[in-house]
Amino acid sequence: MPRLADKNVPMTVENHFTLIATDGGARTGELRTPHGVVRTPAFMPVGTLGAMRAVHWRDVREAGTDIVLANTYHLMLRPGAARIAALGGLQRFTGWGGPMLTDSGGFQVMSLAQLRKVAENAVTFRSHIDGQTVELSPERAIEVQRLLGADIAMQLDECVRLPAARDDVERAMNLSLRWAERCRRAFVGGPEGAMLFAIVQGGDVPALREQSARALVAMGFHGYAIGGLAVGEPQEVMLEMIEASVPSLPAERPRYLMGVGTPDDIVAAVARGVDMFDCVMPTRNGRHGVAFTRFGTVNLRNARHADDPRPLDETVSWPATSGYARAYLHHLVKSNEPLGAMLLSEINVAYYQALMAEIRAAIAAGTLAQLRARLVADWARGDIAAV
Amino acid sequence: MPRLADKNVPMTVENHFTLIATDGGARTGELRTPHGVVRTPAFMPVGTLGAMRAVHWRDVREAGTDIVLANTYHLMLRPGAARIAALGGLQRFTGWGGPMLTDSGGFQVMSLAQLRKVAENAVTFRSHIDGQTVELSPERAIEVQRLLGADIAMQLDECVRLPAARDDVERAMNLSLRWAERCRRAFVGGPEGAMLFAIVQGGDVPALREQSARALVAMGFHGYAIGGLAVGEPQEVMLEMIEASVPSLPAERPRYLMGVGTPDDIVAAVARGVDMFDCVMPTRNGRHGVAFTRFGTVNLRNARHADDPRPLDETVSWPATSGYARAYLHHLVKSNEPLGAMLLSEINVAYYQALMAEIRAAIAAGTLAQLRARLVADWARGDIAAV
Repeated sequence: MPRLADKNVPMTVENHFTLIATDGGARTGELRTPHGVVRTPAFMPVGTLGAMRAVHWRDVREAGTDIVLANTYHLMLRPGAARIAALGGLQRFTGWGGPMLTDSGGFQVMSLAQLRKVAENAVTFRSHIDGQTVELSPERAIEVQRLLGADIAMQLDECVRLPAARDDVERAMNLSLRWAERCRRAFVGGPEGAMLFAIVQGGDVPALREQSARALVAMGFHGYAIGGLAVGEPQEVMLEMIEASVPSLPAERPRYLMGVGTPDDIVAAVARGVDMFDCVMPTRNGRHGVAFTRFGTVNLRNARHADDPRPLDETVSWPATSGYARAYLHHLVKSNEPLGAMLLSEINVAYYQALMAEIRAAIAAGTLAQLRARLVADWARGDIAAV
Repeated sequence: MPRLADKNVPMTVENHFTLIATDGGARTGELRTPHGVVRTPAFMPVGTLGAMRAVHWRDVREAGTDIVLANTYHLMLRPGAARIAALGGLQRFTGWGGPMLTDSGGFQVMSLAQLRKVAENAVTFRSHIDGQTVELSPERAIEVQRLLGADIAMQLDECVRLPAARDDVERAMNLSLRWAERCRRAFVGGPEGAMLFAIVQGGDVPALREQSARALVAMGFHGYAIGGLAVGEPQEVMLEMIEASVPSLPAERPRYLMGVGTPDDIVAAVARGVDMFDCVMPTRNGRHGVAFTRFGTVNLRNARHADDPRPLDETVSWPATSGYARAYLHHLVKSNEPLGAMLLSEINVAYYQALMAEIRAAIAAGTLAQLRARLVADWARGDIAAV
């Protein structure tokens, strides 16, 4: 007699990921979504409220972005998931049109909401906008993400703030596993080609990471994320947790490291088999006057740039990176002119996407180690000397 | 024996303006500047600090902008005129590259600076940034504008806040005339093709406007501005002052109405012979959630747009005007997402420039009256009904 699960979910989960090449642990491939193909390793800029902060959608795309992330927690509170559904889903609502991944809302509930309470059935919280009480269950998280029109939906999970006692980490990991199964059932019958990713939890305990990964793979998902990292832990811990998780994940499915990270974090994680990333760094740093460049980060607020006619990097093809004087960018940032945040944010998104393109090409050519050595040396070199 | 003036300034002031066609009092033409040709009637968006607020230079140009205005007062305080000169002038510093008009700084000294004191020789004020005492004489105003690299510099003048006693208006007008002559002398020997515009003053007194215009024309300038308006007076007063000034201005020289204005103000002033305009309205309104459209202004903050999938105006070729749902613009504005201010500001600049293109074409075709009747009827009709 079939188990309950067999009646409700298909025995196989369709695979939309194609591996093109590998280079050591690193992989390059393509992920087909309802709204287009994502080249991996892929970086997803974060458009929390359905908009990249201070970056035109046109520039998001021209920078080489294949997929963006939007935050379910924010969008369900404002403008509301049903409204976005009525307007044709996030891709049409925003005009972006391309692939979108939505998180489950769980992470933001933990970090932003007031009076949150985690129970077996759901997490309950007060909206940070109007104080209303909202319940987010695994089933509701899937429903909301379906209304938003996610190409890739994420399971609801519970993240534990590190450092944490092992018991707490284990309890949250096990709750996340039960929620994964409930999300999986709720997801059945979703839109053609849409995907559901599970999230490996287990804090900073390698054994729990492995246990979580194995349990999720046994259930079967379109892809697997590694969650609960990039929350302030040392890079070694993050890399160790990737290494504890990846061997248990199927080679043919995409792997997504949530909330990561610096260019250095990304290259290190790619070398360990990660395919997808998201982070607010390019846009947040841009708004704060900091540019990512070949020679590391550059703080345009610094007075050393005030009389510098040189661009950030004349070798970069992105127009704003090679076309504006550092003196002008400095002036804009110091004067709080919106154009400063706009230019630096697009410069940073373009930097990240050019980096991903280099990484993909190097994996295809089998030269990722050489690329990484060059990148690390350049970052360590630091910015060009002041004029 | 030649008068003193004859020894210091050329007897003739080169003319860079070409009239192409007239239609009643309205004119269309071309003004050649060192950085390119300006089609008139022209609208100059305001880039106070050397940047359009929340609009990319690329979009400023693609919207059909030929020339922009920058504020001398702000730029001389930060980043400083000598610095901008060392960086190649405003056009190069900002990356805009095209024609720029700089005001003299006088208007902002009156409206922004602390402890300002107007004397015969100069206006003295405290910087609103660092409290330092700064002196702005007619000669210094020209020097600063030369350092900034202005294609068109403006004379230093004194604006009187209306309503004002006739004596005060007359005193300021006469001071402005003496400053005009000093600016004219200081301007001699400036860069090839650069222009100096005088400013007609005289408050709301037609006889003083005429007197001011005649006196300035007798001195001889590349162009003539009408200043001290758009400061809260009724439109009839503004139009009456234009009518009092224009007959005394030479037909072959460009005429610039400073700080104006609404689309309706612009069309009315064009019909009375004005060739150039500047105003912060498109960008300021954009930042405040208000769009200019064929059917008048639309406040995107209004809840009626929350579920409206329609664009602001599907007949407009500007991508953001016809390509984004009102519901999305509403969401961005309500959420204070920078993209909201960005899109509405460029939508508004594009609206203004499309209006100017229509105006120029109508003058060339001799159909300005019909265009104006249609525009006024459309504006009066108001926005499309809510869904």
